[in-house]
Amino acid sequence: MEIAVGLAAVAKGFYGRGWLWGTSGNLSAVVQREPLRLAMSPSGVDKGELTAPQVLEIDDHARIVGAHKGKPSDESLLHIRIVKERSAGAVLHTHSIWNTILSDRYAADGGVKIEGYEMLKGLQGVRTHEHTEWLPIIENSQDMPALAETIGKTLNEHKDAHGFLLRSHGLYSWGETLAQAKRHIEILEFLLEAKGRTGV
Amino acid sequence: MEIAVGLAAVAKGFYGRGWLWGTSGNLSAVVQREPLRLAMSPSGVDKGELTAPQVLEIDDHARIVGAHKGKPSDESLLHIRIVKERSAGAVLHTHSIWNTILSDRYAADGGVKIEGYEMLKGLQGVRTHEHTEWLPIIENSQDMPALAETIGKTLNEHKDAHGFLLRSHGLYSWGETLAQAKRHIEILEFLLEAKGRTGV
Amino acid sequence: MEIAVGLAAVAKGFYGRGWLWGTSGNLSAVVQREPLRLAMSPSGVDKGELTAPQVLEIDDHARIVGAHKGKPSDESLLHIRIVKERSAGAVLHTHSIWNTILSDRYAADGGVKIEGYEMLKGLQGVRTHEHTEWLPIIENSQDMPALAETIGKTLNEHKDAHGFLLRSHGLYSWGETLAQAKRHIEILEFLLEAKGRTGV
Amino acid sequence: MEIAVGLAAVAKGFYGRGWLWGTSGNLSAVVQREPLRLAMSPSGVDKGELTAPQVLEIDDHARIVGAHKGKPSDESLLHIRIVKERSAGAVLHTHSIWNTILSDRYAADGGVKIEGYEMLKGLQGVRTHEHTEWLPIIENSQDMPALAETIGKTLNEHKDAHGFLLRSHGLYSWGETLAQAKRHIEILEFLLEAKGRTGV
Repeated sequence: MEIAVGLAAVAKGFYGRGWLWGTSGNLSAVVQREPLRLAMSPSGVDKGELTAPQVLEIDDHARIVGAHKGKPSDESLLHIRIVKERSAGAVLHTHSIWNTILSDRYAADGGVKIEGYEMLKGLQGVRTHEHTEWLPIIENSQDMPALAETIGKTLNEHKDAHGFLLRSHGLYSWGETLAQAKRHIEILEFLLEAKGRTGV
Repeated sequence: MEIAVGLAAVAKGFYGRGWLWGTSGNLSAVVQREPLRLAMSPSGVDKGELTAPQVLEIDDHARIVGAHKGKPSDESLLHIRIVKERSAGAVLHTHSIWNTILSDRYAADGGVKIEGYEMLKGLQGVRTHEHTEWLPIIENSQDMPALAETIGKTLNEHKDAHGFLLRSHGLYSWGETLAQAKRHIEILEFLLEAKGRTGV
Repeated sequence: MEIAVGLAAVAKGFYGRGWLWGTSGNLSAVVQREPLRLAMSPSGVDKGELTAPQVLEIDDHARIVGAHKGKPSDESLLHIRIVKERSAGAVLHTHSIWNTILSDRYAADGGVKIEGYEMLKGLQGVRTHEHTEWLPIIENSQDMPALAETIGKTLNEHKDAHGFLLRSHGLYSWGETLAQAKRHIEILEFLLEAKGRTGV
Repeated sequence: MEIAVGLAAVAKGFYGRGWLWGTSGNLSAVVQREPLRLAMSPSGVDKGELTAPQVLEIDDHARIVGAHKGKPSDESLLHIRIVKERSAGAVLHTHSIWNTILSDRYAADGGVKIEGYEMLKGLQGVRTHEHTEWLPIIENSQDMPALAETIGKTLNEHKDAHGFLLRSHGLYSWGETLAQAKRHIEILEFLLEAKGRTGV
């Protein structure tokens, strides 16, 4: 329940910044590893009004555990895949203006290169601003199992990536804990906006 | 009364984002279909301080029902027309920076084409990002009955549109419920800003 | 006292939008006409934390009435002049990013022309979007009596203006009441940003 | 303790504007001059949730005074150096989008020149808008003792500077009191954004 409270608090904060408007975006956090149980924001809910009791618990096939009337997000399979590939404790997905714009602007390059910013040091394991973060851009799709596969491959090819963009869709990032995942989203959103506004 | 509370809450939120400044914009929701009774924000009120008791009830000629000292918005006729054309349960009208700018930038094209964004899936009935939303732009006017007619025609010509722009004026959207109308506004405002900032 | 509470509330709201940062800007409202008594925000106070008891009362020479330890804003003379020229009940002065930028961008033209926006209808006496608002730009100065004179002349030359800009400094607007002055500021700030972002 | 409460309040406000995202930035205030005791925000803490008890007390070698489990920010040495060079009572360091962008845009010039804005008058000792503020830009580094030396030299070369930028990193400013330091940050952030948006 504490996990659900945490997800609701992060949702409210991100919604306030315009990163989860129109019921977009979704948030998850690991409740238990074996077998996997994931606290997951429900589909179609106003993220500015998300409450802890609305948060679902799902298994590793994105099926609801227990008796809950909510519907898991279509993107639950993507969260599950990221949790497994990165041993993540939480996964956050935002739709911001700047991540949307850059996910298209740099699509032909296959990703966004971010380097030289002090802000990068907030990403787990990064010790200096002399770091190059490559944020892969994956073509958007409505075929979730296929998209989960593509994400799995991409994460394997880019072992150091702290997030990725779905084209004209949004940003995914994660962390060992919910706090770390939130930190990563804030840092990547900041850097995408900074890069976006310089027009490079 | 619950409807009025809901309208006041949406007004406060939208005002906070700068979409209803200077007493601009207006909000309505259907109280009863036959005969039509519409809860409607009053004219000339600061939307950041709108209270439920200030919300008016009007009939399908935009006349106040009951004893209320408020004045219905001049644009009540537009709300009534939209409610009828779309069988809408709520109609919201915002004045944001970006909807104002784009309503003029694309006026010569007669509308704004928005396509390829995942965010589009939040619009009722849209199942994929491979959707083209055409947001018609209607020339602004102070002749409300005539404008209501033009809006009626435009909605008939563009059966799939989830909203429209009045030139150098603002955005109208609607939904089966107030929550859906709010969601549509957030999505369209997001997409207009994203498009506006890419400069295409 | 109610007036001071109102000024503090407006200050808090405007500060939250970044229009009164760094103790910039000032706010006043008429307490009494004959002889003139003006409630005035004190100099050097954080507008996000302005409280009603901090609000000063000054006479028409900008001298404090009663025993108050605060210091009136240097720009009190400008407020007094505007109150007299326009029979205003309240005067508000904001330092926003966009009013600062446009006050310089259009300085060579002597003013900013704003026309065709529905939002203009929120300005007192304006009945249609087919209105041209001319916002005069006055060269900035630290000589307050001289600046008050220039403002007096400018207001006489532009009888219909609802506000003016001081170059690289900020916006002044006013109203019959505090609520109207607030509405005017919101409308002019909105229009300056809309115009500023279109780059015309 | 009152100082820690003040730092937490400023942190919360700045975080809300996106100046301290992702645990970035840090804040300090002098508790005692001889020997120096500095209240300092801890490393790795979410600035939107910083509480007074989390604030550390450090000496002039950036060692924690007393029994506290927190870790002082890596940049504590920079704060200490600024406190000594400027006899400052408080030092604030922000990571905003605009200070980040301008710290790189003007790096080849060695600084940002800001002149002619009324807003400059909010900087301590500045009496007119006809003032030129030179904000030095210092190359970023992870070698804190060396960076502290460079900062010391820069502050000596630019005796009148009210702040400086670390390239692709952020803004430092200070004041005799925490309130003055906050005012300086707000003013410099405002001016950097105004300059940044004019594109000069």
